[in-house]
Amino acid sequence: MADTERERSEELDELAEKIPDYIANRRYSELKQILTEMNPADIGDLMGSLPTKSLPPVFRLLPKELASEVFVYIDSDAQEQLISTFSDSELKEVVDDLYIDDTVDIIEEMPATVVKRILKHADSDMRLEINKILKYPKDSAGSVMTTEYVDLKTGYTVEDSFLRIRRTAVDKETIYTCYVTDDNRKLLGRVTVKDLLLSEYTDKVVDIMETNIIYVNTSDDREYVANMFARYDVPTIPVVDAEERLVGIVTFDDAMDVILDETTEDIEKMAAISPTDKPYSKLTALDLWKKRIPWLLLLMISATFTGMIISSFENALASVVVLTSFIPMLMDTGGNTGSQASVTVIRSISLGDIEFKNMPIIIWKEVRVALLCGGTLAVTNFAKLMLFDKMLLGNSDITLSVAFVVCSTLVLTVLCAKVIGCTLPMIAKKLGFDPAVMASPFITTIVDAVSLMVYFRIATVVLHLS
Amino acid sequence: MADTERERSEELDELAEKIPDYIANRRYSELKQILTEMNPADIGDLMGSLPTKSLPPVFRLLPKELASEVFVYIDSDAQEQLISTFSDSELKEVVDDLYIDDTVDIIEEMPATVVKRILKHADSDMRLEINKILKYPKDSAGSVMTTEYVDLKTGYTVEDSFLRIRRTAVDKETIYTCYVTDDNRKLLGRVTVKDLLLSEYTDKVVDIMETNIIYVNTSDDREYVANMFARYDVPTIPVVDAEERLVGIVTFDDAMDVILDETTEDIEKMAAISPTDKPYSKLTALDLWKKRIPWLLLLMISATFTGMIISSFENALASVVVLTSFIPMLMDTGGNTGSQASVTVIRSISLGDIEFKNMPIIIWKEVRVALLCGGTLAVTNFAKLMLFDKMLLGNSDITLSVAFVVCSTLVLTVLCAKVIGCTLPMIAKKLGFDPAVMASPFITTIVDAVSLMVYFRIATVVLHLS
Repeated sequence: MADTERERSEELDELAEKIPDYIANRRYSELKQILTEMNPADIGDLMGSLPTKSLPPVFRLLPKELASEVFVYIDSDAQEQLISTFSDSELKEVVDDLYIDDTVDIIEEMPATVVKRILKHADSDMRLEINKILKYPKDSAGSVMTTEYVDLKTGYTVEDSFLRIRRTAVDKETIYTCYVTDDNRKLLGRVTVKDLLLSEYTDKVVDIMETNIIYVNTSDDREYVANMFARYDVPTIPVVDAEERLVGIVTFDDAMDVILDETTEDIEKMAAISPTDKPYSKLTALDLWKKRIPWLLLLMISATFTGMIISSFENALASVVVLTSFIPMLMDTGGNTGSQASVTVIRSISLGDIEFKNMPIIIWKEVRVALLCGGTLAVTNFAKLMLFDKMLLGNSDITLSVAFVVCSTLVLTVLCAKVIGCTLPMIAKKLGFDPAVMASPFITTIVDAVSLMVYFRIATVVLHLS
Repeated sequence: MADTERERSEELDELAEKIPDYIANRRYSELKQILTEMNPADIGDLMGSLPTKSLPPVFRLLPKELASEVFVYIDSDAQEQLISTFSDSELKEVVDDLYIDDTVDIIEEMPATVVKRILKHADSDMRLEINKILKYPKDSAGSVMTTEYVDLKTGYTVEDSFLRIRRTAVDKETIYTCYVTDDNRKLLGRVTVKDLLLSEYTDKVVDIMETNIIYVNTSDDREYVANMFARYDVPTIPVVDAEERLVGIVTFDDAMDVILDETTEDIEKMAAISPTDKPYSKLTALDLWKKRIPWLLLLMISATFTGMIISSFENALASVVVLTSFIPMLMDTGGNTGSQASVTVIRSISLGDIEFKNMPIIIWKEVRVALLCGGTLAVTNFAKLMLFDKMLLGNSDITLSVAFVVCSTLVLTVLCAKVIGCTLPMIAKKLGFDPAVMASPFITTIVDAVSLMVYFRIATVVLHLS
């Protein structure tokens, strides 16, 4: 067992390099020995970095049960490759051993022909369950749940419950939280194995079950569901349909995956990138171009408006040339202060810390922060201009009026930037858009235009420009 | 039970408003009835929004066991308030019922005098365990683990194991994964309650335990540990000391909290904000100013260098005034393309998708993306300048040479931005800094300077400026 992340990753790399040799020299039993001592997730990772033709011989070395566990962790391109080399009976063996939610995850990444083949070789119960889950909209609780859970009836004793758990445990992803339903499958409560272990064998489920439980609807957003795990510290959350009938459960490991996925999506949107499901290392240059170019084009076109503002003040700039040199500092500071506010608000919205109704409080808070920040920046900048640029470097272009124009623009820019930065994400959320889109790049473009307008307006008045 | 996030939050708000009335009118039993049907996390949330003087009467209404559960979910300011109103015996009751890792979380937020009082009223075993955990460095696996787990010995039968679990379950945070140790407490393997339920009563632990298990060291970074949960889909991970002796376990709910915390920290750093533990809604304007101003000052000062570049080309700008109007577009595009690259790389590093050794591949990928993006932007911009600005609007300042200068600068700026954007975070990581600091604002500042230098250099040559 490797001790640190780096060692683990290095060991996997070394092994990946050696595997073609093992295969070429038919050292199968040695390789099998090494693989069976590894964790399924690590073997899955390893297989992702093997040459395509090494995949089937390595996979066939794995004992059946381990093979199915490993299959879940292989990346989807390699999964597809493998499936294409499977005989029908091999495919059936792997699919039979998979949990339903894992099968659904795999199916969602496969082309239609492969999906058909998988469904054909799943047994009829499983096919039914898979099709049920596939019907739920992408990103809904229904689409991330599993239908493999233990359900109990109120009339069961603790002994009955243990019998039922023992009888069905092999096929269930999690058995530690059991759900109690009535004859119409309506969700009544929850009993944990811990509760069962701490009760007498003759106690009734109805007497030990917890009835005040958290649940979600099939149509709830998967991000909302994932956040409930973080909020309520539970290992599973039951999913009910519109009639409050239990249809499945979401498990903590899927919730964790959802949190990581959704956060990556948010971060990408904040940086003006269209999100995809694939990791960076699997994306080609063309994929990356497609994710990035629409936003760059949009933002480039918007930035030309800022250029138009500069053009319309060309005369003013020509008469006091030094004004041009402050443009980058004013634009950058506006962008930075604006994105501080917007990113903070976006993250707080997605963590459930703030809502639209808090908007007045938030604007008022940001106004005070803006005055503090703007004031500090203006004073620092004024000191720098007068003491460093004017007195020390003897730059005669810097007059008291110019310094005043720059510093008062700073305060107003920061104020506008913070207010725009905190309001746009909340308005986006209210209108049903993803607030993450209203992050740095958008705010920067808007604030650029605002700050230059403020700058030239103040300059025109203070420096008496025409 | 409320169905959606919004309803839940509205119900809590309504209740919070009514509570002072309940207390003023001494309608205690009604209020108690309402509270005992709520989830501890929701009650904790509710108490965070109550006026300080309502806290103690509401808390005293809760049945003892629920009170301790709720206490964990109250925000730390309100916790401190409450503790100050507790009698010694009340404090002891609450602390006795807390899990050790929760107690440590609470203690870490309290001032020294309160910590002393808590430790004084914890029983001596618990005090010992708390002190052990407190000794581990912040952000280490040791600091987020709990010492409450079930340990088994190889010689136990399944029946012995169930007896031990039943006897100790009440005090343990999780009982479903038990760890097997030898007489020196060295970690040997893992047995789940599922394994136990599926075995015969007379089977030996040594025969059913899984020996190839994931574990971490007390000194491992907590983010690394949290990522292991996402990678290996396990509900708990054992923590061992330097001698491979089992000292604690980390549970999935703490891992989820770590993931959320660390991501928020990363996002804040990416937006040039110093991270804190408190949510936005709990921070004052002054707190926010402290988190934001150092970066703004630093970035403002750096941006003045960009201004100096403009100053040194004042003459060139004065002779071809239209050049000034493209500055915002070039700066923004450079910043946006650079932050796309840096944010993608930062996220991929923290998800473990890429490492320093992949740098050549990544630079080469980003170079190709840059040429694709830069090319697209340049062609679009050229078409816009010649067709829209020159032909349609009849802007005589736009010549073929000017368009060439702007468009070739675009390509070079995008190229520099992508390369700088992808390399700096990896270098930061290699040098032991947090790559997240190398996100948009820093990249923007550097790329601004680079793009203006490229711009003026090309302009000087192509337009024959002096």
